[in-house]
Amino acid sequence: MSSPQFSHLDAQGTARMVDVGAKPVQRRTAVATGFIECAPATVLALRDRALPKGDVLTVARVAAIQAAKITDKLIPLCHGLPLDRVDIDFEIQDRGVAIRATSVVSAKTGVEMEALTAVSVAALTIYDMCKAVDKGMVIGSIQVVEKIKE
Amino acid sequence: MSSPQFSHLDAQGTARMVDVGAKPVQRRTAVATGFIECAPATVLALRDRALPKGDVLTVARVAAIQAAKITDKLIPLCHGLPLDRVDIDFEIQDRGVAIRATSVVSAKTGVEMEALTAVSVAALTIYDMCKAVDKGMVIGSIQVVEKIKE
Amino acid sequence: MSSPQFSHLDAQGTARMVDVGAKPVQRRTAVATGFIECAPATVLALRDRALPKGDVLTVARVAAIQAAKITDKLIPLCHGLPLDRVDIDFEIQDRGVAIRATSVVSAKTGVEMEALTAVSVAALTIYDMCKAVDKGMVIGSIQVVEKIKE
Amino acid sequence: MSSPQFSHLDAQGTARMVDVGAKPVQRRTAVATGFIECAPATVLALRDRALPKGDVLTVARVAAIQAAKITDKLIPLCHGLPLDRVDIDFEIQDRGVAIRATSVVSAKTGVEMEALTAVSVAALTIYDMCKAVDKGMVIGSIQVVEKIKE
Amino acid sequence: MSSPQFSHLDAQGTARMVDVGAKPVQRRTAVATGFIECAPATVLALRDRALPKGDVLTVARVAAIQAAKITDKLIPLCHGLPLDRVDIDFEIQDRGVAIRATSVVSAKTGVEMEALTAVSVAALTIYDMCKAVDKGMVIGSIQVVEKIKE
Amino acid sequence: MSSPQFSHLDAQGTARMVDVGAKPVQRRTAVATGFIECAPATVLALRDRALPKGDVLTVARVAAIQAAKITDKLIPLCHGLPLDRVDIDFEIQDRGVAIRATSVVSAKTGVEMEALTAVSVAALTIYDMCKAVDKGMVIGSIQVVEKIKE
Repeated sequence: MSSPQFSHLDAQGTARMVDVGAKPVQRRTAVATGFIECAPATVLALRDRALPKGDVLTVARVAAIQAAKITDKLIPLCHGLPLDRVDIDFEIQDRGVAIRATSVVSAKTGVEMEALTAVSVAALTIYDMCKAVDKGMVIGSIQVVEKIKE
Repeated sequence: MSSPQFSHLDAQGTARMVDVGAKPVQRRTAVATGFIECAPATVLALRDRALPKGDVLTVARVAAIQAAKITDKLIPLCHGLPLDRVDIDFEIQDRGVAIRATSVVSAKTGVEMEALTAVSVAALTIYDMCKAVDKGMVIGSIQVVEKIKE
Repeated sequence: MSSPQFSHLDAQGTARMVDVGAKPVQRRTAVATGFIECAPATVLALRDRALPKGDVLTVARVAAIQAAKITDKLIPLCHGLPLDRVDIDFEIQDRGVAIRATSVVSAKTGVEMEALTAVSVAALTIYDMCKAVDKGMVIGSIQVVEKIKE
Repeated sequence: MSSPQFSHLDAQGTARMVDVGAKPVQRRTAVATGFIECAPATVLALRDRALPKGDVLTVARVAAIQAAKITDKLIPLCHGLPLDRVDIDFEIQDRGVAIRATSVVSAKTGVEMEALTAVSVAALTIYDMCKAVDKGMVIGSIQVVEKIKE
Repeated sequence: MSSPQFSHLDAQGTARMVDVGAKPVQRRTAVATGFIECAPATVLALRDRALPKGDVLTVARVAAIQAAKITDKLIPLCHGLPLDRVDIDFEIQDRGVAIRATSVVSAKTGVEMEALTAVSVAALTIYDMCKAVDKGMVIGSIQVVEKIKE
Repeated sequence: MSSPQFSHLDAQGTARMVDVGAKPVQRRTAVATGFIECAPATVLALRDRALPKGDVLTVARVAAIQAAKITDKLIPLCHGLPLDRVDIDFEIQDRGVAIRATSVVSAKTGVEMEALTAVSVAALTIYDMCKAVDKGMVIGSIQVVEKIKE
């Protein structure tokens, strides 16, 4: 009774897609962040290679954008959204790579799952490209840091 | 020079798929774990509903298995692998949900990206299903904890 | 001449996507039903397990929702629709499982293919999960039972 | 106890992919059939147009083959299979169209879900292409009629 | 400075999706064409078989329509567009097959990539279906020939 | 009679997937090439930006690799192949960009469609990223230049 309401579960606890038909179309922005912790040698290598080539981060950026576009195929109860824009930013820090994704849509429902999915897949792609040299990476701190409705 | 070698980057730093043609087909297992931190009220609600219905976790499990099967579509330089098995386990703890994915394949290359992808998408699905009641969840500690080659 | 007109075929019988550009965006609902006939022992097992766990039906429900979202990828001349909602209901009956899918969209074209696809994939998923114990299941009675335009 | 065993559910009823790692690679064939019931005028139109053009049935055939190839993406606990061959046959009968799909694979697990999926999507595609002129079609009798292991 | 501006690259040359949120929804049409050059014997065979059956071209048409619908999944910085219509026309000429695709959308951004993708995949499908008999085919002249904004 | 045999068409001209079950697994390599013709200003801009950042070509490379992996989803009668490797090379020339894709597989059937698909999608991605500044690009000369069976 006093427990929170799960909008994806009906009275009997059955999974369902929330009906967004009656919600207004609004410009909605979400920003999510995350971090992939790497060994110092990996950070150095990313810095060295990132400056002239940037390939690891560019591949991760493309993967993240592509994943944001199929968020509703990955997450069963998400609605398909016609994204206006997705941006992925990386900052190579001493202990790893900080990832920030901004997703923007004009739609009836929020866009934070798209931003979180973009961050997650960016991190997984960096993991994949560095795993031959670094077996101890950890992906974390994936969260929504901003939601705007205009 | 002394920096580690990125197997996905060639001498010029160009992204490429590593050639696995010469590697032997072996039975390979990988286990990855992760954690989604939730508010106490969310944990209670998950416990209450999870016991009789389990819908949040079942939906997350299905999403994770489906994601593991398309890992190579999400992560650009991954090879497609014919998975023998994927298992997803959840433990509802006081501060959130612990996720554990085991992926098994008979193939020429390792299967840890599939396990990491399964954990990530399971966490994203739980996030999606609880976000109406909990705005502060954080996904983290995503890492590989075991790799076996037989 | 007196034969009906196939809207997907032009004057020469060539397959084409019907142009929906001039049609108004309306709230559209479709309901489809279907049935999967099972052996009595399968029905009993579904009943026993379905009560405490519901996993077969939850997995089928998730698969059906996911399939509804990719109807236009499965059926060549369907248009992509931004679904507002998809609901899947099951009733375990003495001779099998009755399936009912409701799809809702605000769009220029009808949504019955999404409901029919959801029912079909729900039935296929139940078949898959029961086929180890029941070799004689039959899927049938897949039809549209309601269409509403608001 | 005496109820049948669901291979996709473990002791606790949790959904899981069955481990097929230990099963031998064998040539496996499955044949599934189904039927879409149409109004007499639709059958006539299909016959008329099918003879010179065959477009409805060719589109349905292509859709069915494409669907068979993504069976594991549609049905959550199915394994990905490298299909050797898929054949789709149609017979226009007085009361509708009989559909027959044959799927063949050299793999560790059976291929009947691929044949059933092909039949289902062929029927849905015919439905989609005829629905402008026939509102009362019913898809049914979807079943496996043959399984061969060599 | 005097070099052209790449809208997909920001000031630092980083790939990004262009924000289309502020653009008006307009009816947009694009026409693209292409050509697949074949050996004379292949052209003859296409002509012979194309008249009674049309299968090669129908399969290519379906493949092209399906590809147009996933253009944003194939081309990383494309936006997802809800296509109103896609038409594919073929003309068998003495030296090969001319392909023409028309894509129409009511959206905030242009639809030429969908038309180009449809032409490309139509050509690839024809290639695939004729390659057993013709090893020297060449696909070319893929370009946009018309763009209309209403 | 004397016309060539289309392996994808049976005696009646019906589309079908060729049965590859009896063919031996062999290491197979295919190389395809293509060219995208650009205006001189576009070539200059690509050269300028390609040196420090390479983003256009890296995005095109990732898109091409991803497309190669779903060749069988794009081209209806292609078999799914577990690619060992895909390489994409670009050469910026005075009149445009030369594209070369190498695909390698250990499988029962050839891999040239994967190489051709990679080239096509690389060209489409370059087109997309340069189209804001160059309306007259033409994609062409897409062909197989080498096939090796070991």
